[in-house]
Amino acid sequence: MLKQPIPTLHRDGDTVVILDQTLLPFRTQTAVLRTLADAAHAIHSMQVRGAPLIGATAAFGVALALRHEGSTDETLTRALEVLGTTRPTAVNLQWALARMQRTLRHLPRTQRLAAAWAEAAAIRADDVATCAAIGGHGLALIRELAARRDGPVRLMTHCNAGWLATCGAGTALAPVYAAQAEGIAIEVVVSETRPRNQGLLTAWELRAAAVPHLLIADNAAGLLLMRGEVDLVITGADRIAANGDTANKVGTYLKALAAHAAGVPFYIAAPHSTLDFACPTGADIPIEDRGASEVCRIRGSTEAGDIAELELAPPATCAANPAFDVTPAALIRAIITERGIVAPGELARLYPEEVR
Amino acid sequence: MLKQPIPTLHRDGDTVVILDQTLLPFRTQTAVLRTLADAAHAIHSMQVRGAPLIGATAAFGVALALRHEGSTDETLTRALEVLGTTRPTAVNLQWALARMQRTLRHLPRTQRLAAAWAEAAAIRADDVATCAAIGGHGLALIRELAARRDGPVRLMTHCNAGWLATCGAGTALAPVYAAQAEGIAIEVVVSETRPRNQGLLTAWELRAAAVPHLLIADNAAGLLLMRGEVDLVITGADRIAANGDTANKVGTYLKALAAHAAGVPFYIAAPHSTLDFACPTGADIPIEDRGASEVCRIRGSTEAGDIAELELAPPATCAANPAFDVTPAALIRAIITERGIVAPGELARLYPEEVR
Repeated sequence: MLKQPIPTLHRDGDTVVILDQTLLPFRTQTAVLRTLADAAHAIHSMQVRGAPLIGATAAFGVALALRHEGSTDETLTRALEVLGTTRPTAVNLQWALARMQRTLRHLPRTQRLAAAWAEAAAIRADDVATCAAIGGHGLALIRELAARRDGPVRLMTHCNAGWLATCGAGTALAPVYAAQAEGIAIEVVVSETRPRNQGLLTAWELRAAAVPHLLIADNAAGLLLMRGEVDLVITGADRIAANGDTANKVGTYLKALAAHAAGVPFYIAAPHSTLDFACPTGADIPIEDRGASEVCRIRGSTEAGDIAELELAPPATCAANPAFDVTPAALIRAIITERGIVAPGELARLYPEEVR
Repeated sequence: MLKQPIPTLHRDGDTVVILDQTLLPFRTQTAVLRTLADAAHAIHSMQVRGAPLIGATAAFGVALALRHEGSTDETLTRALEVLGTTRPTAVNLQWALARMQRTLRHLPRTQRLAAAWAEAAAIRADDVATCAAIGGHGLALIRELAARRDGPVRLMTHCNAGWLATCGAGTALAPVYAAQAEGIAIEVVVSETRPRNQGLLTAWELRAAAVPHLLIADNAAGLLLMRGEVDLVITGADRIAANGDTANKVGTYLKALAAHAAGVPFYIAAPHSTLDFACPTGADIPIEDRGASEVCRIRGSTEAGDIAELELAPPATCAANPAFDVTPAALIRAIITERGIVAPGELARLYPEEVR
């Protein structure tokens, strides 16, 4: 299984070092988180992104808070609250904070800091193992397709659910790396994923790993699927409701519709920390709106060849910028989890302990 | 009906003046076409774009060729060939050139130049009238929806099929301008339309006309439709096959799928010059691929706040960049033409003279 060439997140003494993903693919640079505010900012500004990595960063953020502000109940409560409101959709964030709270709340104050670092490290280690297991299960799907094809298996993904989105090898891309390690020819169709262009993170990852890939505008996904140029679609997820409806990066739903129309199987790859049995359906999942500037601040070339920037402003131009959409369970062939591959409606059977 | 605030295309003596759409919305600047090569370049580079405007520009390009290279059969043949290969998908280009050829081929050489200018002007004038008629028919649909709503009618479009895409008031946006003139409250949902961002042209048009609009990433269209935030979708078209399958700007198909899933009516607005009864189905429509650089040349900010550009290159990163996709007739509620609104399967009834 792929080892992260640069750790997305690791502890360094009393600090946490992250790869700053807002600078990729233009600069490969780390950032040091020292305080609760640093951790909250890293999540909110998307220096770290991807549901599993958001969860792990929040866990380490609790440790940073206790380290700098003392291990009182008030500090713990405030840390959970500040980190819990950084981003609303990925339930991994709430999951990781709940796990930290369960571990820490009944401990004496003197033991809390060490326990916080240890629990955050355990969340990180669990994620590495989870990614590896998802990769192994997804590999079986790719093996089957490879056996039936002459050329490379053509896998479409959306956004970035690779190693950059996790502490390990990724979710949607873990099977790709596993297939490559086994010598299976595979090509990944990567959509640029406007407005934040996380597809470029995926292209950057795949370039580094020498996995062939085809970059497309998000708009092109429908035609490629209609033409039979894709064998399967795998994306990650930010929250999976009890009925299997899945919130993921905005645009996922459009790919799922087109895959369904073309008879191409559409899979979600996600760890159990992405399951939310407290949400009955996708309609109950809160969808983050990230504001107008991600859409309305536009860049173009002037005739002189300079790059100019301008912002289309209200009241004339307004914007809607939902960061996620919801793919109904009916469009999802199966969900690839660390415990195996399961139909969206069968999640409760695979994870009975998660049903509250 | 809206009058173009700046003509997209007009004759000025022995030249043709166009609004250079590659500079919008950063600079509002015209370009002067003097030769066949200028006209061919304007179409290929998308200084002019939009199926009706491409057709009209090609017609004027024939006149420019005769003006500068003489009115021989060879000049005419070469002009038709050069212009005919500038862009493959919009059939309006072929339609306009065929109309020029029919007018000119049997004329004595001495009469050809004047006839070419006159026929190009007639094509332009016809397009103005056609846009007005489409606007009138589409207005009836919007009136009906407005009567059933309290708030503004919310119309989604894709790419730019406004006045910038035509010689008149537009195709998909003509009904919007007609509704606004009638005092009907209307809001237009505009998708940015990667990779060439023609949605920004639409936003620019609508700003100038004071029509409220909501700019979205292409990826957001599915969620807005699913949430019931759109009352109808109208897009333009580049070629409509005999069975009603329609090629339009890439990404149109994804919107049509999402509209269908949400029960929102999806309309195509197009003149008869976009009909191609020689194409039995959408699978027979040639789809232009505009090459990797539109997708792989990417811009981002460095930490210092500078804007940097880099190009992801083969062999690691390749790109597919189809400029159009095909929306099956089954997803199209009706086609709004200058003769009225008709189901996709009924086009031949409305335009019997076009059936070859």
